[in-house]
Amino acid sequence: MTEPLRLGIAGLGTVGVGVMRILQKEVDLLEARTGRRIVLNAISARSRAKDRGVDLSGYEWEDDPVTLARRDDIDIFVELMGGSDGPAKAATEAALDAGKDVVTANKAMMAINGQALAEQAERMGRVIRFEAAVAGGIPVIKSLCEGLAGNRITRILGVMNGTCNYILTRMQSAKLTYEEAFEEANQLGFLEADPQLDVGGIDAGHKLALLASVAFGTQVDFAGVELEGIGRITIEDINAAADMGFRIKLLGTSQMAEGGLEQRMAPCLVPATSPLGQLEGGTNMVVLEGDSVGQIVLRGAGAGEGPTASAVLSDICDIARGFRYPVFGQPAGSLIAATPSQSNTAAPFYLRFALQDRPGALAKVAAILGEAGVSIHRMRQYDHDGVAAPVLIVTHATPRAALDRAIAGMTATDVVDGEPVALRIEAV
Amino acid sequence: MTEPLRLGIAGLGTVGVGVMRILQKEVDLLEARTGRRIVLNAISARSRAKDRGVDLSGYEWEDDPVTLARRDDIDIFVELMGGSDGPAKAATEAALDAGKDVVTANKAMMAINGQALAEQAERMGRVIRFEAAVAGGIPVIKSLCEGLAGNRITRILGVMNGTCNYILTRMQSAKLTYEEAFEEANQLGFLEADPQLDVGGIDAGHKLALLASVAFGTQVDFAGVELEGIGRITIEDINAAADMGFRIKLLGTSQMAEGGLEQRMAPCLVPATSPLGQLEGGTNMVVLEGDSVGQIVLRGAGAGEGPTASAVLSDICDIARGFRYPVFGQPAGSLIAATPSQSNTAAPFYLRFALQDRPGALAKVAAILGEAGVSIHRMRQYDHDGVAAPVLIVTHATPRAALDRAIAGMTATDVVDGEPVALRIEAV
Repeated sequence: MTEPLRLGIAGLGTVGVGVMRILQKEVDLLEARTGRRIVLNAISARSRAKDRGVDLSGYEWEDDPVTLARRDDIDIFVELMGGSDGPAKAATEAALDAGKDVVTANKAMMAINGQALAEQAERMGRVIRFEAAVAGGIPVIKSLCEGLAGNRITRILGVMNGTCNYILTRMQSAKLTYEEAFEEANQLGFLEADPQLDVGGIDAGHKLALLASVAFGTQVDFAGVELEGIGRITIEDINAAADMGFRIKLLGTSQMAEGGLEQRMAPCLVPATSPLGQLEGGTNMVVLEGDSVGQIVLRGAGAGEGPTASAVLSDICDIARGFRYPVFGQPAGSLIAATPSQSNTAAPFYLRFALQDRPGALAKVAAILGEAGVSIHRMRQYDHDGVAAPVLIVTHATPRAALDRAIAGMTATDVVDGEPVALRIEAV
Repeated sequence: MTEPLRLGIAGLGTVGVGVMRILQKEVDLLEARTGRRIVLNAISARSRAKDRGVDLSGYEWEDDPVTLARRDDIDIFVELMGGSDGPAKAATEAALDAGKDVVTANKAMMAINGQALAEQAERMGRVIRFEAAVAGGIPVIKSLCEGLAGNRITRILGVMNGTCNYILTRMQSAKLTYEEAFEEANQLGFLEADPQLDVGGIDAGHKLALLASVAFGTQVDFAGVELEGIGRITIEDINAAADMGFRIKLLGTSQMAEGGLEQRMAPCLVPATSPLGQLEGGTNMVVLEGDSVGQIVLRGAGAGEGPTASAVLSDICDIARGFRYPVFGQPAGSLIAATPSQSNTAAPFYLRFALQDRPGALAKVAAILGEAGVSIHRMRQYDHDGVAAPVLIVTHATPRAALDRAIAGMTATDVVDGEPVALRIEAV
């Protein structure tokens, strides 16, 4: 008879309650699948009195998550508090120090402190699992580390912030302005307390940094992620992109290039007919590309009680089955400290700008682009509004530096009003 | 220092050669990821002399796969020969008997002999892994057994035969007849030696039976799969379905219903805008639905050297890492012998028939439908061709038995020419 696997959960928000519900309801099913009884012994949260719609009696209560993490009657510390540092990190360190395994949904903590925590875990012979930290219920860490273990990963792409995708989708489908769609998402409770975590791309950037580490065997490096939020996307860009056969997504992209590790979380254009282009609403999608497997697309709910709890349970069940491997897929000491790439891989770009309506204006712009080494693939000029005419250009693949030279030249000239909008086009 | 993990491969077709290529090229990467050196010691195939474009020197050769399976210098028997019985099964049994783990890509063998093999493996304390048997490089068995281990699976759906999807897509996009699209697929080498394995739905049915077993904890039961191929699908159905906003796919569906386990592999209509509806060409897609996670969609190449070899490597790497669990996700003795469901869950259906062009004809059909208890959701009658008018009906959800009564009635009447075409509409 195998000993039961004993859990302590810190953090009883939506996800913590979801995990408790599954543990209460499915104890027999989980035992059939893993061969071990999984029991919850102790819990911790800010308020003991709050009604969470789940029975808290029968569990040991700790006010302090660090005390919970060190309890003798738990084998796994389940960290569902959130926050990159503070109590979550302190309790995680205490758990590892006390010889516990850790399961966490905390993307910020793992993206910022992941390397140090991985090193500590390995010193102690413990594991940290974080499937729930990336793309909710989609088993993407598992797919990368295990399902594609025979591949060199060549590129990863992902729409991993449902709120941003909701806002962009609503702008497209309901012709809302950014401000209107943002307010709608806010009313629906989709936004974090600090909305910049969503619309600034920070939350999705944390997830991308974690994926890049397991995909490329590199030390997790959130500081190396080029971040750009969706706040500057206008309805004009949404419509113009659609007119050219594209959709605008807050897209994470990472690949190992000659100059180093590229990690970008920024609004991009993707073909409207691609799986990423067709992704609507709050759903997440991750695209994994490997040298043998080709392209694998994973799609599912990226947040919410059930999906995130499902991912937490996946990690718990793996540990119950005795599956153990290094935190980021290979030993922490073997992970490369990659140079963040300063010279991005060339890509086509979308340019939108307002062109003065007078003779020779387009010739001037074309000359500036040519001198910068930027070649035009497709171009559309629309009716002028009395003063200026909207112009869209899709370039051939061009390095970002060349594009920046062209934009500087266009901004300096007297035939372009304001600064052109430039968005990368990602082939998928 | 951990001992190396030693492999023997039987079957050096496309997949076997693909596995050899990865093993030769990535031995260091695989060791970094799994913590063990993975070495290929012995191989077996029909012809030693055949040029496969890969270096066979340096490996022990066996003419007989059974002898290979029993060799003392292998830990894992990698079965890539194919065929439900015969040498593949004999060698797999010999390997288990000799205390080896087994990795196989053989869907037919696992779908037909899986329960007996699982029982033998467990008696011997060995594992059989078969990720490559279902949906090529997509890590679907892993996602079901491990990634969604905290869920009750409520339904699985899948387009799992790339050849059929290619034929149906070409009928749709290039307006080819079934015969033309079939011939095109044949010229491209997409068809199995016995085309019925593809277009008859047998190959995809094997895969569905395997998925159903791990999803629902049931004994694998290929005989319980309701099979219908795509040979009866006409260009008229493709066009009519498109007209109503649907696509026709050879779709596998399985769910545990009141009457027992439903397993169907049959042409179905799915919404054109759904991920399944948008799936074109030879790509595979599996949809997994769980009570906590909601809907997870997995998409990727379902066949070919690289994708299938990737799946084989995933299983090998798991064993190298020491991941072990029962063949179908829970102990073979605990798998339920489910009753194949005779009373299918109600669903909407698509009906197409030729209606005689005379007064009262439609009224007669409507009365027959009403008497059978079939309610009409949408209907279109097209221009008659002189004698009869094509009519399309989308019904409200109806049990198959009621629909069959209605079809019998319509066939018996004198206002419908021939037998109506009926296809299930699957909500996704």
